[in-house]
Amino acid sequence: MSLLVVGSFGIDTVQTPTETREDVIGGSAVYFSYAASYFGPVRIVGAVGDDWPTECTELLQSRGVDTSGIEICEGGQTFRWTGKYMDNMNDRETLDVQLNVLGDFEPRLSDSARESKYVFLANGGVDMQLSVLDQCPNASMRVADTMDLWITTQRDKLLELLKRLDGLVLNDSEAILLTGDKNVVRSGKKILDMGPRFVVIKRGEHGAMFIDKDQIFVLPAYPTADVVDPTGAGDSFAGGMMGYLAANDLDADLDSMKAALAYGTVTASFNVEGFSLERFQQIEREDLEARMAEYRRMLTLP
Amino acid sequence: MSLLVVGSFGIDTVQTPTETREDVIGGSAVYFSYAASYFGPVRIVGAVGDDWPTECTELLQSRGVDTSGIEICEGGQTFRWTGKYMDNMNDRETLDVQLNVLGDFEPRLSDSARESKYVFLANGGVDMQLSVLDQCPNASMRVADTMDLWITTQRDKLLELLKRLDGLVLNDSEAILLTGDKNVVRSGKKILDMGPRFVVIKRGEHGAMFIDKDQIFVLPAYPTADVVDPTGAGDSFAGGMMGYLAANDLDADLDSMKAALAYGTVTASFNVEGFSLERFQQIEREDLEARMAEYRRMLTLP
Repeated sequence: MSLLVVGSFGIDTVQTPTETREDVIGGSAVYFSYAASYFGPVRIVGAVGDDWPTECTELLQSRGVDTSGIEICEGGQTFRWTGKYMDNMNDRETLDVQLNVLGDFEPRLSDSARESKYVFLANGGVDMQLSVLDQCPNASMRVADTMDLWITTQRDKLLELLKRLDGLVLNDSEAILLTGDKNVVRSGKKILDMGPRFVVIKRGEHGAMFIDKDQIFVLPAYPTADVVDPTGAGDSFAGGMMGYLAANDLDADLDSMKAALAYGTVTASFNVEGFSLERFQQIEREDLEARMAEYRRMLTLP
Repeated sequence: MSLLVVGSFGIDTVQTPTETREDVIGGSAVYFSYAASYFGPVRIVGAVGDDWPTECTELLQSRGVDTSGIEICEGGQTFRWTGKYMDNMNDRETLDVQLNVLGDFEPRLSDSARESKYVFLANGGVDMQLSVLDQCPNASMRVADTMDLWITTQRDKLLELLKRLDGLVLNDSEAILLTGDKNVVRSGKKILDMGPRFVVIKRGEHGAMFIDKDQIFVLPAYPTADVVDPTGAGDSFAGGMMGYLAANDLDADLDSMKAALAYGTVTASFNVEGFSLERFQQIEREDLEARMAEYRRMLTLP
């Protein structure tokens, strides 16, 4: 089992223009691990409170996710997020955040987790991300996500983290915030100067861009009319991408990353078709492959 | 000569975050015809004032554009547009518009122009667009562009136009404005219900989407770090698209439209690398083909 993800477990309340769902399962590591599980084994590490429903852990286990790294903090509450999506289903507003047990979570990896070859540092504090890197000295692919909060409040630590990463995955607005350059291609190149071998810039409904020192490519999102809830799309994208790389023992060469981003794109396209993990629970790997074939046809020029 | 474009000739003043250019050549029909000229012959129709520089007409002639349909309105002034681009080089603000001779231009096509098989109604008033359709009864592909101004102020006429079109090309924000549906895929489908066989939704730096009753596809923009001036990108895109279709006598089947949108994308990617027609003046068809090969490689999944 070579893929490890560390990040948040969440209980979310999501408002869309047509519906509100209260207290649904969420969190960056949860979406990531479910998405990655379509491709191969994945180990999840993170903290939850007493309020975390046992059946959510069982749901991940049913997908083959190794949940032994979930730390239940007695007397604590799970991270909670409440957000509202605008009419375009792309822009959103955070109405409430309660860090709870995520606030001072210090991951302590098991001996076997420390041997993970593919390590994904999902969204969470930079201290937590750095600590995981310290504990995984033999990882061959270290990739992190980040967000505006950490770019703004923990910039120095984030720059330290970047020097130790193989890849960074982030939104276009975050790339601009991190570098101060409003051209996405140039901002990606500036991030390479900060350390990572590659950068993947997520653009929501507009797809994703890959940049390393030699290459740039862009893949569009899979076009869908049925966006129900975009929460977790970026984490599902990263889960599909890393799950594919880890399952096939691939490095970050161009062909591998193209396929990985394509699988991430297709995986995320299912996720947004339902609230929480609802749509994922309806699909199997063969559904991903069928849509992947459609996506491939879409991109094939005559 | 089977491709006809009717639209605006403009004298533009363009402000970008780093530079301002005053009184440069522009206009929807001008960008379109220059872009289309890489693929085959194109005939341009429109009105200019006394102030239109002769050398601009000669520039189009040097590309093989048939300029006999340019009407010089004595004592009149050419359409003028002044715009300012924001730091992201995608959003822009119109600072000043003077319709001038464009305001009451009534195109009178020559007998040979009336036989055009491919007709593109570039941005301009809906009356002008309808009049051209009346004069081209034998066209087999009638495609129009439109903009928020006409959607808001001439909606009924625009709906009449839509019933007579094969295809509509417009921005995503305009598709949303026209249909009231904020999902781009659904808005495209709703436009099909208004008449055209196909819709092409331009998304600026995010590429373009094609929708007909059977198919949807998305192609990303060619990623560039060197956006100097986006003015005319949409018109250049349409020019490349229609130029390719007309030169190869193609209909709107899936393979033809995929190749056409790809050529439009690549053509527009050069246009934005300079002010006005400056970058176009440095390139030949072989430069388009070289970038097309790169674009094709970019989209080829392993």
